[in-house]
Amino acid sequence: MELPSKTMERAVRELSRLPGIGRRSALRLILYLLRQGNDRMENLASSIQDLGRNAQFCENCHSISDSPKCSICSDPRRDDKSICVVEDIRDVLALEKTNAFRGKYHVLGGLISPMDGLGPSDLTIEELVNRIKSNNAEEVIMALSATMEGDTTAFYIYRQIGDLSIKLTSIARGLPIGDSLEYADEITLSKSLQQRVLFESTLSN
Amino acid sequence: MELPSKTMERAVRELSRLPGIGRRSALRLILYLLRQGNDRMENLASSIQDLGRNAQFCENCHSISDSPKCSICSDPRRDDKSICVVEDIRDVLALEKTNAFRGKYHVLGGLISPMDGLGPSDLTIEELVNRIKSNNAEEVIMALSATMEGDTTAFYIYRQIGDLSIKLTSIARGLPIGDSLEYADEITLSKSLQQRVLFESTLSN
Repeated sequence: MELPSKTMERAVRELSRLPGIGRRSALRLILYLLRQGNDRMENLASSIQDLGRNAQFCENCHSISDSPKCSICSDPRRDDKSICVVEDIRDVLALEKTNAFRGKYHVLGGLISPMDGLGPSDLTIEELVNRIKSNNAEEVIMALSATMEGDTTAFYIYRQIGDLSIKLTSIARGLPIGDSLEYADEITLSKSLQQRVLFESTLSN
Repeated sequence: MELPSKTMERAVRELSRLPGIGRRSALRLILYLLRQGNDRMENLASSIQDLGRNAQFCENCHSISDSPKCSICSDPRRDDKSICVVEDIRDVLALEKTNAFRGKYHVLGGLISPMDGLGPSDLTIEELVNRIKSNNAEEVIMALSATMEGDTTAFYIYRQIGDLSIKLTSIARGLPIGDSLEYADEITLSKSLQQRVLFESTLSN
């Protein structure tokens, strides 16, 4: 049923076009905003407007950035020779939290997924290949999800850059820290067997 | 962790101030919007801005409206003498869907809830009393939630208008259509016994 107020109807409709927000939750959010008053709505609206008008992609890693080069890519303390390939900016954040990587990133902007109509040309794979060539990168680390889409994308990239003389690695798949072995699925377990490491090397942490 | 892009950080922060949207979902929504392009963001932003600037409350029923009087209140085919008191505009929509009410509404804008710091003066109860008096209303129907807050609010209103010569009714509480008796809770069952109606009157539907 349409709302009696056309402005409200339009706001509800725009909000409910976001993934995971149905008409009912959109209505709940709009009623909340109305109770908060005009200032909150102006702030929310202008922040989205700003983003639409000013957000750009870093020309180096294709992460979202306020300037032509993002803060990570313009940090001189970070190693240019090591490139970590990720799906999107959330993965950059997740990896940055670990403090375990001091190289730079390359954001693909998605994974190859024929089901979602996403092919290699929709991602920044060509830019990655050019970057590796012009940069003389020494190592490219694939940090992609352990899903069919992640594996497909990694394999596609491997086909593009496999014959360049760089070290191409992938983050390890195995038993997550804190998990007990008896509940792990067999694919994870067999991967963790295949990718077993020298016990001595696990003592350094 | 802060996002490398300040514009993105601001949009994520504003979105995650909405109820039920955490930082992680806000980030997901923002990434979705960025993929959709600037037009979608402009549309969403302007719809919220519009709402903040133009939404008003109907001077009669206090529902949200584009004009000083909402479409229901300005409909001459609807009965002025019967006023249905509801918590918010969502209840108006729910009742309108039934097509069972041809009177007008009064939107309280909430329920009395000391826990949430909402007292009678935060609601449009005074406006309701004035409206009933000036309108010569014949019936006031309380259509409030069957919760402590709903009951408290209904009782408060009853105290304000109980001595006016109008019929004051409340929507029935009882067994929902489709529910089996054995699973109904005892309070609902005892209410449905107390509020039993002549069997003949149930045949008309």
